[in-house]
Amino acid sequence: MQTPWEYRYAHRMQNIKSSTIRELLKLTEQPDMISFAGGLPAPDVFPVKEFHEACNRVLENFGPQALQYSTTEGHKPLREMIAQSAARYGMEVSADNILITSGSQQALDFVGRLLLDHGDHIVVESPTYLGALQAWNAYGVQYIPVRADENGMIVDELEEALRAGPKFIYALPNFQNPGGSTLSLERRKKLVELADKYGVPIIEDDPYGQLRYEGEHLPSLLALDSEYRGSKDGTYNGNVIYMSTYSKLLAPGLRLAWVIAPPEVIRKLVLIKQAADLHTSSFNQYVAYEVAKDGFIDEHVKLIRATYKERRDVMVEMMEELFPPEVKWQKPQGGMFLWNILPGNMDAVDVFNRAVEKKVAFVPGVVFHPRGDGKNTMRINFSYSSPDLIREGVTRLGEALKEVIAEKV
Amino acid sequence: MQTPWEYRYAHRMQNIKSSTIRELLKLTEQPDMISFAGGLPAPDVFPVKEFHEACNRVLENFGPQALQYSTTEGHKPLREMIAQSAARYGMEVSADNILITSGSQQALDFVGRLLLDHGDHIVVESPTYLGALQAWNAYGVQYIPVRADENGMIVDELEEALRAGPKFIYALPNFQNPGGSTLSLERRKKLVELADKYGVPIIEDDPYGQLRYEGEHLPSLLALDSEYRGSKDGTYNGNVIYMSTYSKLLAPGLRLAWVIAPPEVIRKLVLIKQAADLHTSSFNQYVAYEVAKDGFIDEHVKLIRATYKERRDVMVEMMEELFPPEVKWQKPQGGMFLWNILPGNMDAVDVFNRAVEKKVAFVPGVVFHPRGDGKNTMRINFSYSSPDLIREGVTRLGEALKEVIAEKV
Repeated sequence: MQTPWEYRYAHRMQNIKSSTIRELLKLTEQPDMISFAGGLPAPDVFPVKEFHEACNRVLENFGPQALQYSTTEGHKPLREMIAQSAARYGMEVSADNILITSGSQQALDFVGRLLLDHGDHIVVESPTYLGALQAWNAYGVQYIPVRADENGMIVDELEEALRAGPKFIYALPNFQNPGGSTLSLERRKKLVELADKYGVPIIEDDPYGQLRYEGEHLPSLLALDSEYRGSKDGTYNGNVIYMSTYSKLLAPGLRLAWVIAPPEVIRKLVLIKQAADLHTSSFNQYVAYEVAKDGFIDEHVKLIRATYKERRDVMVEMMEELFPPEVKWQKPQGGMFLWNILPGNMDAVDVFNRAVEKKVAFVPGVVFHPRGDGKNTMRINFSYSSPDLIREGVTRLGEALKEVIAEKV
Repeated sequence: MQTPWEYRYAHRMQNIKSSTIRELLKLTEQPDMISFAGGLPAPDVFPVKEFHEACNRVLENFGPQALQYSTTEGHKPLREMIAQSAARYGMEVSADNILITSGSQQALDFVGRLLLDHGDHIVVESPTYLGALQAWNAYGVQYIPVRADENGMIVDELEEALRAGPKFIYALPNFQNPGGSTLSLERRKKLVELADKYGVPIIEDDPYGQLRYEGEHLPSLLALDSEYRGSKDGTYNGNVIYMSTYSKLLAPGLRLAWVIAPPEVIRKLVLIKQAADLHTSSFNQYVAYEVAKDGFIDEHVKLIRATYKERRDVMVEMMEELFPPEVKWQKPQGGMFLWNILPGNMDAVDVFNRAVEKKVAFVPGVVFHPRGDGKNTMRINFSYSSPDLIREGVTRLGEALKEVIAEKV
């Protein structure tokens, strides 16, 4: 007996395809694999004890409310706390500027729903975050990549891209995923000015802003946009949609992130969210608020920074020692990723295949390039594996690199 | 200084509008209002103690895993438990048939993403669930309403609708929201046969199936479809996408629901979910599993049934005593809603306005009719308010009804 999936819906079923690379990455899920492929936080730094206490307090004091349906905007005390925390980083915003989402991935998807029509163009850094490409591919868009170097997006090349009439600019200014670069202050200012000049909004994705291991914090694009407009009055009304998350500061298993945007944008996103999933888990919002409310994150992030800084340093040291000289990288100032560049005639998928044989994995950089270039690049995560595993994994990866390079010569 | 929201995005911003009725319903949020408007479970029946114990066990035994990113499909033990539980109700399915979603609303949205093109037609019961209309309106679809009576959708009128070539049939067979009706066994079988004859899938929404206060459980459309196909082999491969939720059995604040569908459909929904929000909270999935795993829901649902049955009975008794004879209703066999029909020349919004003056609220039935008919209908929730509040609220509502009817004569 036939089912409709085979004929009536054949066109829709075929539209949605798993990528080759996703199939490739399934190889990295073997239990004895040292994986530098994912973008996972270290479970060692999850504040399990604090979650435990927070769950107890929430269920003792707010059980019925925390387990009931709640508002689409999100738990008001949590939104107010996020607004206050943002203000400390120069973002003068109110709770009316904030929507709680089920992870930043949902925020990316909602931005697509709100702003994108089929065939639209978007400016992205090259390379850029794979999750954003996945979210917006669903809306049938085209990408205009702008190259990045160690100081982030090369803003001098942005103006030409803006003249093509993109719907928005997607930027990850801090410790970019996957490139590891940080956008310089000068470029941030220029980016904000150009976006305003061409009337193109900026989508600022900032999951790692607090994971800085050296150097000074730089103001967000949203903060610079406020300054540039000179219109600070306690509520933000500018050109930037900013997003951040508790996934890297507390724990990703909560699926808690937030969008900061002008109230008129937030109101539309609320209607989109209402149709998409009603609201984000009220229980998780209560728990996150209880964990974070008395300044816990400020303390906790010191542990995260110390842990990841050590791992980054171990990885860089090992690479310097063991990687062949043909492989280039920059030491990132923060975040979770190192970006490797191989000689231009090499394909990182060859290295990937050799590395997987040796039980170490990474992500070939081509997936972060919407136009399929970047075949000679690799993303390597340093946050998840212990220093010992990093030593062993880089050793194996160095061997794989040497072997593949030797075969190419 | 202008922002792009006012010009470049004006067309998109205007596309997304809050409905008149949603603005109206904001009136019901006053603190001294007796609200029969929402569809909330009674917080009295939330198993707070069991959640407390489950959170403790999860954080003691699985803290790091429960707080980490997890698979898009959902927590495997939870999916296996749901499959086993479905099997007890005649649905022979495996974990490969199951996707965990962030509430049923997300499942409705994903069905739209997977199956709908702009301009498509969908068969719905009239009246039907508002959340489904909200989810699918976003995809620019048209509705073909099929009338319902006390035995649910009038399946004899379905065939004509199917000849119009709809993309799917959306059905709530048990204690329908808003109509309260239950689809008879005979009609269920006929519906499954017709859907197969015309090659049109069925979206079966079953949030209230276990909330039956009298009569015998009836098999789901998915179970009947399996039987009809005679193809039971432990994994379901038929014509139905079934959805249910823990919102009414445990607590809605978790945002935990599930889809049961053929594996080929589940695989596509997984890709959609990956782009939409990566996965549903791993912590909540661990907690729900811990609460439910030793048969707790079977016990707990007895309390829910007893609580809601009493509320339904109090409400019906009070209506019989106090509502004017012009108002008609059926006593539902389960669920959370009573459906009132006023004389055809009346507008329930007039009653709503009068009722709100008297501090009691309900939902005018017109919102559940995609074509704007049903102006003389009202949805009244009986699960949320205590019996005392139900007595007081029905008294006030009876007065409002009498006054408005008297003015009409």
